[in-house]
Amino acid sequence: MSSAPTLIALLYGPDQPGLVARVSGWIFNCGGNILHADQHRDMEAGVFFQRIEWIPKAASIAGNAASVENEARAFEAFARSLGMETKVASSVQRPRIAVFVSKFDHCFHDLALRWKAGEFHGDIALIISNHPDLEAAASNYGLSFLHIPVRAEAKSETEAQQLENLRQHRIDLVVLARYMQVLSDRFLREWEKPVINIHHSFLPAFTGGRPYHQAYERGVKLIGATAHYATEVLDEGPIIHQDVARITHRHDVEDLIRRGRDLEKSVLAQAVAWHLENRILVYGRKTVVFD
Amino acid sequence: MSSAPTLIALLYGPDQPGLVARVSGWIFNCGGNILHADQHRDMEAGVFFQRIEWIPKAASIAGNAASVENEARAFEAFARSLGMETKVASSVQRPRIAVFVSKFDHCFHDLALRWKAGEFHGDIALIISNHPDLEAAASNYGLSFLHIPVRAEAKSETEAQQLENLRQHRIDLVVLARYMQVLSDRFLREWEKPVINIHHSFLPAFTGGRPYHQAYERGVKLIGATAHYATEVLDEGPIIHQDVARITHRHDVEDLIRRGRDLEKSVLAQAVAWHLENRILVYGRKTVVFD
Amino acid sequence: MSSAPTLIALLYGPDQPGLVARVSGWIFNCGGNILHADQHRDMEAGVFFQRIEWIPKAASIAGNAASVENEARAFEAFARSLGMETKVASSVQRPRIAVFVSKFDHCFHDLALRWKAGEFHGDIALIISNHPDLEAAASNYGLSFLHIPVRAEAKSETEAQQLENLRQHRIDLVVLARYMQVLSDRFLREWEKPVINIHHSFLPAFTGGRPYHQAYERGVKLIGATAHYATEVLDEGPIIHQDVARITHRHDVEDLIRRGRDLEKSVLAQAVAWHLENRILVYGRKTVVFD
Amino acid sequence: MSSAPTLIALLYGPDQPGLVARVSGWIFNCGGNILHADQHRDMEAGVFFQRIEWIPKAASIAGNAASVENEARAFEAFARSLGMETKVASSVQRPRIAVFVSKFDHCFHDLALRWKAGEFHGDIALIISNHPDLEAAASNYGLSFLHIPVRAEAKSETEAQQLENLRQHRIDLVVLARYMQVLSDRFLREWEKPVINIHHSFLPAFTGGRPYHQAYERGVKLIGATAHYATEVLDEGPIIHQDVARITHRHDVEDLIRRGRDLEKSVLAQAVAWHLENRILVYGRKTVVFD
Repeated sequence: MSSAPTLIALLYGPDQPGLVARVSGWIFNCGGNILHADQHRDMEAGVFFQRIEWIPKAASIAGNAASVENEARAFEAFARSLGMETKVASSVQRPRIAVFVSKFDHCFHDLALRWKAGEFHGDIALIISNHPDLEAAASNYGLSFLHIPVRAEAKSETEAQQLENLRQHRIDLVVLARYMQVLSDRFLREWEKPVINIHHSFLPAFTGGRPYHQAYERGVKLIGATAHYATEVLDEGPIIHQDVARITHRHDVEDLIRRGRDLEKSVLAQAVAWHLENRILVYGRKTVVFD
Repeated sequence: MSSAPTLIALLYGPDQPGLVARVSGWIFNCGGNILHADQHRDMEAGVFFQRIEWIPKAASIAGNAASVENEARAFEAFARSLGMETKVASSVQRPRIAVFVSKFDHCFHDLALRWKAGEFHGDIALIISNHPDLEAAASNYGLSFLHIPVRAEAKSETEAQQLENLRQHRIDLVVLARYMQVLSDRFLREWEKPVINIHHSFLPAFTGGRPYHQAYERGVKLIGATAHYATEVLDEGPIIHQDVARITHRHDVEDLIRRGRDLEKSVLAQAVAWHLENRILVYGRKTVVFD
Repeated sequence: MSSAPTLIALLYGPDQPGLVARVSGWIFNCGGNILHADQHRDMEAGVFFQRIEWIPKAASIAGNAASVENEARAFEAFARSLGMETKVASSVQRPRIAVFVSKFDHCFHDLALRWKAGEFHGDIALIISNHPDLEAAASNYGLSFLHIPVRAEAKSETEAQQLENLRQHRIDLVVLARYMQVLSDRFLREWEKPVINIHHSFLPAFTGGRPYHQAYERGVKLIGATAHYATEVLDEGPIIHQDVARITHRHDVEDLIRRGRDLEKSVLAQAVAWHLENRILVYGRKTVVFD
Repeated sequence: MSSAPTLIALLYGPDQPGLVARVSGWIFNCGGNILHADQHRDMEAGVFFQRIEWIPKAASIAGNAASVENEARAFEAFARSLGMETKVASSVQRPRIAVFVSKFDHCFHDLALRWKAGEFHGDIALIISNHPDLEAAASNYGLSFLHIPVRAEAKSETEAQQLENLRQHRIDLVVLARYMQVLSDRFLREWEKPVINIHHSFLPAFTGGRPYHQAYERGVKLIGATAHYATEVLDEGPIIHQDVARITHRHDVEDLIRRGRDLEKSVLAQAVAWHLENRILVYGRKTVVFD
């Protein structure tokens, strides 16, 4: 990885000739040096997708953060003039993450340890849980922990409290790390920013509750896990990453649950890492992952 | 693999103390030498499963095929006396296979080449197709080819003709190698013997037709294939084997179909091989595979 | 898993007819109920291997630990009378583990969290490190931590101190969790009990130091990790488990190291779990793993 | 896949600012439309690599093959002016392949069937074998078959005969499909064009002969296969693709060989497909694969 600050643009829109040349030409003319550029065309839909990372000229001048920021905004205006949707992130900004967790703690520990090991381009800024159990563990990691109990009869109050805290802590990304409550449509609409969830099956197989029990009943030979963006329809959001593990008749439901934990950890961590590195474009029900 | 003739028993039934000892004791007392024994307990259901392979004493005496056969029948009677369902196969019997195929030929070629390479404990005795396209290819492999066209308005006649040929050729196993016709309940009931099918998705995801198109639409990151025994409810039979391959947004439906072919070939071939080696016990909707 | 105490025997020796029957008969005659039995024959070498787990009759009588222990010893005597090497473990005994670690902490955290999650049939009783860095982390897990610095000029003193502590803490298994010091032949001879090591390559490729750098130089497309028993010849001990991950030209050495961490964690944890469940038989340079 | 003729350039050379912009700008100025562009930087070595595919303007005019060819040559001159090594291929040219084979026929059948199924962007134009065994099979596929026996005492004559036939048939790529003879340095020097070989182990583990026997002796838990370009040092050429399969103590050498066949087939076929699609850049001992 380069240590100079970089800008990373994700853009997509109607395909047209010359897009690669015009985008790279714009950057070159501004004195920037492209480090990575990856593009994709959905031939059927006629859509062009690109991730492009460059060192802006301003980055080479000390104390020039404002200029880098200006170049980001200028690129966005340029991309819009091409009819593209875009988002430009700067490598010096580190997105702030809130992890929602209940009692299952494997994904929580995994995310915290990877963060401490420097694997994420971003920072866990807040743990929110409907149970108090993980307070000490969070504290050992140096993480703020907020216990917000969920009462069925006062869900909207709970969610209002969650939203308020997300805003106070200037959170950019919510990660549901086996959080056992369903977020309401209203929460998702008001929150507006991305929410990544881990579902413990190979979606679309075994949607809904107790997927390992469903898998055991059906006698499948592989179990899976799926990381996806949360949307208003449960288990239907755009899939980011999936993986599977082989099982046999020797494994009972407990074994499936235990083996599944390793899948859930690695699939969720990979999805979070890609998101933080601005590698994921969502369009419709799908994702383009520039890995 | 041992070259002496062996007997292979698959048995299952209510669990009870002493089953391993009594079964192995019976074989020992008959002068047999156990080569492999593998057992499984479904703790919840209280069911015992076993695959046991041994060299019967009679096998060491030349021209003693009848005695080996007698020992097989005697073991079956013994197992029944323990309350077990059982089936004993002799390694000198080679099951006879009929492959049903339409126009997609990748599984057909794969099965034929593996058979010729000696990978199967059994023989392809007949190819049945609703199209004439593969006649020359079958002939090159030295395989009998039967073209039985399927007319929607005369399905029962077609199936009667298929059944008659299966019986004439003394077929033990039907393999549907991307055969694009649905076998009727009546066919399955009259046939009575096993039918292995390959479905081109990770069941239970994407049942029904055009699963690769469904997978593409949903934006999954892995595609799969599933080999299962055919039962009266389509795509719901006991699963024998499954595998998956990773895909990305770069793959269009054609790519999924092409990559899927490799999955279908290897998953179907493995299921057929296990079946022919008497490694599969079916109970309820599930399989126990002693691999 | 059954909650009644069980005995687990691992045995191997010259193959002879009737071994399965005699072993299971012995257990049956003692009133035991076999839960699992798995055997293997090395046809070339003429060696028989078995793992057998049973509920001894004595186990059903409260406060009968001594009788269970007696049955274990009696079985060992019986197995020896058949010419078999054997080791019988009781499910009520939980082996005690010492984890050796240096500064790389990913395997340490992974083992500690799995232990706390109840994934191991055994207990981490001691952390030994040549650096003080992980003392607080060990303490958070409730683990004893011993800092034993290694000085090149006084290696035998260091090792004497390590051995003394292993004995004091009644350790049964040493796990080298990316411990960056080589244990001397003398240590291994005096210690006598098993030592499991994780090597960060697919052995026998890239033995020795800096395997990820070697892999990068050679341009391989997969990196691996290998868990093996430590023996006097470095990186040559019997292999327990291996796994690989796909890499591309886009990954630099740092990426290989980061991706390798996940492999190292899962491969080492699986090897330790199998060892603690008495699933591994070592013979010559190889292992038989009854998984 | 687009049906319009495209040009595909592979280029690499010293990294410098503006390369992406200048290359895409050149194509845009010529009226071309870029379909795919993928680049990589080796940060340590300071080398830039790119694969870029575009529809040249001339392609839209019927009967304009000469113009397309001219644009390819013009691009090469332009790339050289940037200090880049380059090679431009046209999608209408289909490389011609010679498959070298001995008696093991699984890779031969696999390549032939994939070619017939339209999986390769190229054509098998010739089979060369040191044994006559596969003549009929080749003929069934409609393939020319040349039996060139290899005599140890006249190797240079044999190779001269091979080279002559490769030239007569205007071969672009030699694929060694488990060809059991070593090609001499002289052959490789005189031939000059690429040779892809399949080695039946996870290189660099188990170089040399009988790798499955070596793997069995060492007790590894995974076997592998490696496709690489042949170079003067055996088993040391740049690696294109590798894959592995899990094995256990239950598998004897015969099983390893049988399972290995599936690996060899899929790994070799993938390497050949990538090569034919101009996805592979070789530099030093390594490859960059734009998959």
